[in-house]
Amino acid sequence: MSASLFHGLSAFPITPADEAGHVEESGLTLLLDRLNAAKVDSVGLLGSTGTYAYLSRAERLRAVEIAIGTVEATIPVIVGVGALRTDDAIDLARDAEKAGASGLLLAPVSYTPLGDEEVFQHFATVAGSTELPLCIYNNPSTTHFSFSPTLVARLSAVQNIVALKNPAVPAAEIETVLAPLRSALPEDFAIGFSGDWNAAGALLAGGKAWYSVIGGLLPVPALALTQAAQAGDRAEVARIDGLLQPLWSLFKELSSFRVMYAGANHLGLTQMQPPRPILPLSAADQRRVAEVLEHLVV
Amino acid sequence: MSASLFHGLSAFPITPADEAGHVEESGLTLLLDRLNAAKVDSVGLLGSTGTYAYLSRAERLRAVEIAIGTVEATIPVIVGVGALRTDDAIDLARDAEKAGASGLLLAPVSYTPLGDEEVFQHFATVAGSTELPLCIYNNPSTTHFSFSPTLVARLSAVQNIVALKNPAVPAAEIETVLAPLRSALPEDFAIGFSGDWNAAGALLAGGKAWYSVIGGLLPVPALALTQAAQAGDRAEVARIDGLLQPLWSLFKELSSFRVMYAGANHLGLTQMQPPRPILPLSAADQRRVAEVLEHLVV
Repeated sequence: MSASLFHGLSAFPITPADEAGHVEESGLTLLLDRLNAAKVDSVGLLGSTGTYAYLSRAERLRAVEIAIGTVEATIPVIVGVGALRTDDAIDLARDAEKAGASGLLLAPVSYTPLGDEEVFQHFATVAGSTELPLCIYNNPSTTHFSFSPTLVARLSAVQNIVALKNPAVPAAEIETVLAPLRSALPEDFAIGFSGDWNAAGALLAGGKAWYSVIGGLLPVPALALTQAAQAGDRAEVARIDGLLQPLWSLFKELSSFRVMYAGANHLGLTQMQPPRPILPLSAADQRRVAEVLEHLVV
Repeated sequence: MSASLFHGLSAFPITPADEAGHVEESGLTLLLDRLNAAKVDSVGLLGSTGTYAYLSRAERLRAVEIAIGTVEATIPVIVGVGALRTDDAIDLARDAEKAGASGLLLAPVSYTPLGDEEVFQHFATVAGSTELPLCIYNNPSTTHFSFSPTLVARLSAVQNIVALKNPAVPAAEIETVLAPLRSALPEDFAIGFSGDWNAAGALLAGGKAWYSVIGGLLPVPALALTQAAQAGDRAEVARIDGLLQPLWSLFKELSSFRVMYAGANHLGLTQMQPPRPILPLSAADQRRVAEVLEHLVV
């Protein structure tokens, strides 16, 4: 089972959908076309930015089918299959596998707070239900569960579980996250990072993947940053990361999720808005996003 | 719109369901029979303990129909209608109203963290979709959203929104929670509390309701405690609360949710377990629950 599926730039587009949660094929296709053109290393479909938690099983399958029909065969599609219930996550994993996904992302979605043993069994059961390689989706800000290196190590012994998507921390602290993971995990286990504004430091420190929100909308600079980091070109990484700072500021202030909808709207890719109760940005904040994008895109 | 629906002991049973999430009518009926016999002030169906977040719309409706068919007409049934999506919460509220519920409980379930304006619009939209009175379900440990007195005050001006279910804090701190709410809210707005081990103090401080986990399994002592508090009989409240201390210790250590399943199993009301990934207690911990219950029930 190759962990290299979970290397490089994984681009996480929004999943445009109407008010009833019906996925908009035209909008999703336009977003995916950009990822094809840039030749991202993988598409991270139905991540948190892709509103997986807000879509029905049927619509999640539709999104996978649209992606498999749109994304170039050379670019793997990795699909988020998180669900509150273990049986639902199994159904989603099997749906994704049948539809042609290359890998799975599994977040420990919770309502009742979960313990380590519960999360271990959940992951082992879902991983055992398909042949696809699986990445542990550690996202405490949305799932309210945090993976210890010990738990990740235990999961790394489960067949199919080959990668970790971890929230990045500032460059000055990244070794304190990476060192205990590296010492706990097999060498070929792929430790990657989300959290766009800390991604540059995480990649330079040896993170294998950037699970990137901005990569889902602006794959060109995201891929350039990733490749510069892979080449060890710190000056080029700093240059691109510097260009993206105004966007990182908006992400931190307004949430990357809401900014991505405003951005996709501004670029004319979709007119869809986040699922209620999540509100679109105010008109004033949408203009701020547009201004930042104009400077980046031009 | 009467807030008195949200006064007194509201008993929150588990919702027994099989591994596929199909509600077990016999188990739920046995639990509700106990609430009838004790004459609780209301039944809190499909609360957090009632696994509302883990059940499909169809099964949540089935649970409401079973409850309406079982609970004495003199006891109102209040139904949890929380959902990640606003449109889903509206559907659930209308289902509950059509099936004969007397009131609604709405928690701001989240995945993407929500802001105050998003929660305000979510609540106002759901409240406006039915004629039923609605209680704000403030449960930050599961929803990861916390209501400020300012937001509750704003919501109290919305038609149908008449009550608040707030997590209780230790008696020494309860006034610091109650005072700002009282000064922000209309006098007839019903401020009640969940969190069984702090309920006695919250009721004595003037909390209008106890949204009680233990009341869903052992309604007799829960109602006795509530009525003693309503009568201002501090000695009797302290006596009953003291009897229940071994249970509160288990709740704090093992979670009230998991303890309630072990308790209902021990009393022979159901053999169902929590929905996976949530695991039942270990055999050793189940025995500890059984021992505590034996001392209480006998």
